[in-house]
Amino acid sequence: MQALVYNGPGQKNLEDRQKPVLQTPTDAVIKVTRTTICGTDLHILKGDVPTCQPGTVLGHEGVGIVDSVGTGVTSFKPGDRVLISCITACGRCEYCRKGMYSHCTTGGWILGNSIDGTQAEFVRIPHADTSLYPIPPGADEEALVMLSDILPTGFECGVLNGKVQPGSTVAIVGSGPIGLAALLTAQLYSPSEIIMIDLDDNRLAVGKRFGATATINSANGKAADKVMQLTGGRGVDTAIEAVGIPATFELCTTIVAPGGTVANVGVHGVKADLHLEKLWSHNITITTGLVDTVSTPMLLKTVQSRQIDAAQLITHRFKLQEILQAYDTFGKAAETRALKVIIEA
Amino acid sequence: MQALVYNGPGQKNLEDRQKPVLQTPTDAVIKVTRTTICGTDLHILKGDVPTCQPGTVLGHEGVGIVDSVGTGVTSFKPGDRVLISCITACGRCEYCRKGMYSHCTTGGWILGNSIDGTQAEFVRIPHADTSLYPIPPGADEEALVMLSDILPTGFECGVLNGKVQPGSTVAIVGSGPIGLAALLTAQLYSPSEIIMIDLDDNRLAVGKRFGATATINSANGKAADKVMQLTGGRGVDTAIEAVGIPATFELCTTIVAPGGTVANVGVHGVKADLHLEKLWSHNITITTGLVDTVSTPMLLKTVQSRQIDAAQLITHRFKLQEILQAYDTFGKAAETRALKVIIEA
Repeated sequence: MQALVYNGPGQKNLEDRQKPVLQTPTDAVIKVTRTTICGTDLHILKGDVPTCQPGTVLGHEGVGIVDSVGTGVTSFKPGDRVLISCITACGRCEYCRKGMYSHCTTGGWILGNSIDGTQAEFVRIPHADTSLYPIPPGADEEALVMLSDILPTGFECGVLNGKVQPGSTVAIVGSGPIGLAALLTAQLYSPSEIIMIDLDDNRLAVGKRFGATATINSANGKAADKVMQLTGGRGVDTAIEAVGIPATFELCTTIVAPGGTVANVGVHGVKADLHLEKLWSHNITITTGLVDTVSTPMLLKTVQSRQIDAAQLITHRFKLQEILQAYDTFGKAAETRALKVIIEA
Repeated sequence: MQALVYNGPGQKNLEDRQKPVLQTPTDAVIKVTRTTICGTDLHILKGDVPTCQPGTVLGHEGVGIVDSVGTGVTSFKPGDRVLISCITACGRCEYCRKGMYSHCTTGGWILGNSIDGTQAEFVRIPHADTSLYPIPPGADEEALVMLSDILPTGFECGVLNGKVQPGSTVAIVGSGPIGLAALLTAQLYSPSEIIMIDLDDNRLAVGKRFGATATINSANGKAADKVMQLTGGRGVDTAIEAVGIPATFELCTTIVAPGGTVANVGVHGVKADLHLEKLWSHNITITTGLVDTVSTPMLLKTVQSRQIDAAQLITHRFKLQEILQAYDTFGKAAETRALKVIIEA
């Protein structure tokens, strides 16, 4: 089969690989029908993710059709259409029992990281019963690819951790796919203001279209002042970090109101400064987190009921044979205006 | 009257001052019977607290007798014995209505900071109805001085923010008065382990006596390894920072388990490093906060019912005339083994 393989920092190739086989009774092998590329894949390609070894097939998002299941799999059978979660969960360990699937002792984020991923014709999914979701009949499968990672990530790590509430004020720093996913899902809780902050006017315009009440281009270094103006000098109840660099994290800690929350969603490669000399008395909360995907079934319902229009995150489509071109398009988003690119296998 | 006055960094004097008078209808003037010194007073004397101007009477803790009340005060009358909260609250502003008295727009921590404090024979208390608490008949008034600040601070900023739960594991970094207050109040929630960490063996011994299940002297730089050993490699559910320097804060972020909380209690003078390159995927929460003192009435009951023995925090007693000596004793705690020093006015 064809697969996109990480061959060390800066190196990737579309290669011929053996079709994966069942390794344990709880595995399933899925024929991938659609996958996508994540900002995290670009992090891996920069060499930021040491757990991902050269030779690994990338990708942790996708939908497909069950090809084969192990004898221990009871919820799925060959032919079933399934959504692949970016988080693999045994459902049995101490962390899974608490709903912290991200820290599953034999799972977590392993797909396209420590085991082969979804940017291929077939993928092996461990703990299949608790890592796959059935696709409802008639669903827009392309839109559901957004549920593998970015919608639950924006929602759980941004909106839920950030405690977005009816009438509350929200700033989202970073209007890329993850920030936009936070924007779409924040509206489930009816905040009074959602301010999008980015360096790219196109992405801010998308934010406006997706429901932001205000946008700020932070290129002039005055984003914090502008947020204070928009919030009567108080700052926001929730500041969502959706970039993953020190400057954007530190901006969030500057614009959060007393009693508010900074919800970090970004993948960071270096430390940030935490200005405790100001923050110690500011009564704030900071959260970090890899997505648990506990909200996937709920979000699936909101997409089905059209409360969330997930398909609008998709800007480009490619065949698996064109995946290198898809990476180029996704990697040069400022030029190409790419948000999520769908890859059909 | 006699009052301990801050005269700029490193300078304090016991001076003759005018007895304070009612300035607004909601004020009360209190004859202070007992006060104490806080680590925060030492921070002011170092010049760390720019809101405290030279010429201010220090002190934000104490008990006393109502001397006079403004015409708007309805809950207290002259002769009433009262506990003075370190936080002044109007009870009416947006923050007070949310229980965030620490950020009261005309109050908060102002006593012995932006207005004259309690280390004097008399003190003016603004918003008296909502900043004083009646002392129950027969109460040990000396013990109640611990309720002005350190017990609610340890409890709210450490135990509540840190989400201490039955069966959970807790580490408290700093076994001084605030760390010990967190230790005493953490036991209200029956955690399975409370590990005290400090550089001073005497303070660790006090921690053990006050209910710690384990103690770690961090002088050898191996405190984090030891916590991991004690918690089966997982780390603690709650790490309480009760010192106020970057090293102790960073230790807390190292020993917190996935899903756990770092509750900052310490007053910080400089920034700390936040290692987001490790923490982004660790699903942790960090909280900061000045105490709101919303828990004061509840804690008063626990002291009255002897669930908390607050008096054991008191190691030394002085008269107001001896307050400079009291500062010496409190400031050299490693030598004098001082925890809280009571000053009788």
